[in-house]
Amino acid sequence: MTYEEESLKQHREHKGKLEISSKVSLENMADLSTHYTPGVAEPCRVIAKDPEEAYNLTPKGNMVAVITDGSAVLGLGNIGGLAGFPVMEGKSLLFKKFAGIDAIPICLGTQDTEEIIRTVLNISPQFGGINLEDISAPRCFEIEKRLDSELSIPVFHDDQHGTAIVVLAGLINAFKVLPRSNPKIVISGAGAAGVAITKLLYKYGFHHIVVCDSSGALRGGRERMNESKDDLVKLVGGHDGSLADVLVSADVFIGISAPGIVSKDMVSTMAKDPIVFAMSNPDPEITYEDAKAAGAKIIATGRSDYPNQVNNALAFPGVFRGALDNRVSSITDDMKIAAAEALANLITEPTADKIIPSIFDEGVMEAVAGAIK
Amino acid sequence: MTYEEESLKQHREHKGKLEISSKVSLENMADLSTHYTPGVAEPCRVIAKDPEEAYNLTPKGNMVAVITDGSAVLGLGNIGGLAGFPVMEGKSLLFKKFAGIDAIPICLGTQDTEEIIRTVLNISPQFGGINLEDISAPRCFEIEKRLDSELSIPVFHDDQHGTAIVVLAGLINAFKVLPRSNPKIVISGAGAAGVAITKLLYKYGFHHIVVCDSSGALRGGRERMNESKDDLVKLVGGHDGSLADVLVSADVFIGISAPGIVSKDMVSTMAKDPIVFAMSNPDPEITYEDAKAAGAKIIATGRSDYPNQVNNALAFPGVFRGALDNRVSSITDDMKIAAAEALANLITEPTADKIIPSIFDEGVMEAVAGAIK
Repeated sequence: MTYEEESLKQHREHKGKLEISSKVSLENMADLSTHYTPGVAEPCRVIAKDPEEAYNLTPKGNMVAVITDGSAVLGLGNIGGLAGFPVMEGKSLLFKKFAGIDAIPICLGTQDTEEIIRTVLNISPQFGGINLEDISAPRCFEIEKRLDSELSIPVFHDDQHGTAIVVLAGLINAFKVLPRSNPKIVISGAGAAGVAITKLLYKYGFHHIVVCDSSGALRGGRERMNESKDDLVKLVGGHDGSLADVLVSADVFIGISAPGIVSKDMVSTMAKDPIVFAMSNPDPEITYEDAKAAGAKIIATGRSDYPNQVNNALAFPGVFRGALDNRVSSITDDMKIAAAEALANLITEPTADKIIPSIFDEGVMEAVAGAIK
Repeated sequence: MTYEEESLKQHREHKGKLEISSKVSLENMADLSTHYTPGVAEPCRVIAKDPEEAYNLTPKGNMVAVITDGSAVLGLGNIGGLAGFPVMEGKSLLFKKFAGIDAIPICLGTQDTEEIIRTVLNISPQFGGINLEDISAPRCFEIEKRLDSELSIPVFHDDQHGTAIVVLAGLINAFKVLPRSNPKIVISGAGAAGVAITKLLYKYGFHHIVVCDSSGALRGGRERMNESKDDLVKLVGGHDGSLADVLVSADVFIGISAPGIVSKDMVSTMAKDPIVFAMSNPDPEITYEDAKAAGAKIIATGRSDYPNQVNNALAFPGVFRGALDNRVSSITDDMKIAAAEALANLITEPTADKIIPSIFDEGVMEAVAGAIK
């Protein structure tokens, strides 16, 4: 049975994956009188007087909303909020498993940017953080920016920043294995993840970056540009040519785009001992085997059945654990870089096959959490 | 230690009362591959193709949103959504305890009617039902009506209809103990509960009803009327006088209004063997002891430490269990009446001290659920 068949079977059997449970006993009238009426009035009164007390008297300080409109579900595209529910449930379970956080999926019935922003603002009081998921670019940038500026709790779009943190961690270790000075990095994909990766790598100090989308390298005035792509060109500069053209002599390829778009020939034109992060999932831009055969010295993918899995679950549980525990109101670039360095440093002696920790390695969540403060 | 002190202590100790837990195992990479990526894609695809499948593959069919804006929290008034969180958590735990339903509290940051409606519509896809809580009248009527007409899942304002069902159940049994023909019923309180009780009793067949608010009996053209009060006058007729005036010769007093507003003298002017439902909570319109001393033959309150507690928890778990299991799209008056009769019939030989079942009596949830179809 494939994972997909097994998954469908189990989702049907359990009717999903998460449930609500109680932290207190509710067995008799005295319990009801304590936790419900009349006793419950007292914590309500205390919070009404001082809203900060919600952090002490309710789950707020440990509760995150996992919000999607289902417009860009990994590998599935725009399937809508309800169809994204199984992914959001999965995310909730990862939050609980790896960081002890109570994450509530919210699957929206709208994909209108303003409606999404208003809805999230309206439901935000009870949450200690907002995790945006699978919202398509460029809408996700506006939604995240506006929510982050209007809310005093952290707002994090995992597809952007979770991915960027793990990619940076992997690159830091890749360059410990294969040191380069001012490496040329080609990024394929200018959606949510591509934009965030580019910005974080630039901020970290990599300034020789070329970004491509399906129409080739980004440059001002080219067709199929938009505001966020224009911003990237302002940051890293524009370039001419196709992905194949700009890959020539590149040190690093980072793909968050589409299966099979990189050939062995293209890898063979890269600089000596190239580094290939082919993260399209489940089918990468170039298979592990082909990249290896074409000379790639370090290969990362999004898959769990090959070395160096770029797995967002390495980042988001710790990011929110740290943000909640330290009452961080906004996740800054410096925090993301610190998180990437902490992740990288978990591996004391990186090798080509071990530049990124496994999600089951000890100390992953704690390392990331410690960087978010 | 009082219930309120104990409640505050336990809320502080546990940081609230509910948490998220997993129905599936998540211990290794194979579990991750099944419940998260890549396996999770398959249930998503199936739902994207046929949204009805969400009832089979996600918690939707067993998941209710408990939504408040905190504008009318029992006994506390307008304390806002966040301060109402402990009550909503309590409600969630009762949903789970008594009906096995996963109920998610949603504590709104807005009290604007249109914003509330849009927000609930936007987050509705993942829910099998919407339970509105502690939203003030008359806003609650518009919110409920609009949501009920726009959504194909059941929408239930517990303060209105939960209360009405339990009051009707109590009255049905009260009249088995003390039979009356065409009883005169005085209702004190024209907010959410008062309006719903009046309408349900009228629909059941009690047509001699006088409704009062804090300015006395409702009548057309009186000051401090509003659209919902005008509607009540159209239904049951208008009357002159104060609460004391209209209580003269009344068979039944039903109070969902304010502590201490009914005196022993007022009860003594009622018809022979009067029935008194004094449900203001925690302090009733007249104390159990004073009502008894003034001649009341059957007394119900909202309190758990006296006989005949009018407890909404008798109704809402079963209402939603039945609605979810039978895929009811709207809770009709006929269903509410059937639920009240089912509750009443649980007591085979009603007495003055036992007209309403206890929430811990066996079969309560099942009886109500059986009526919602």
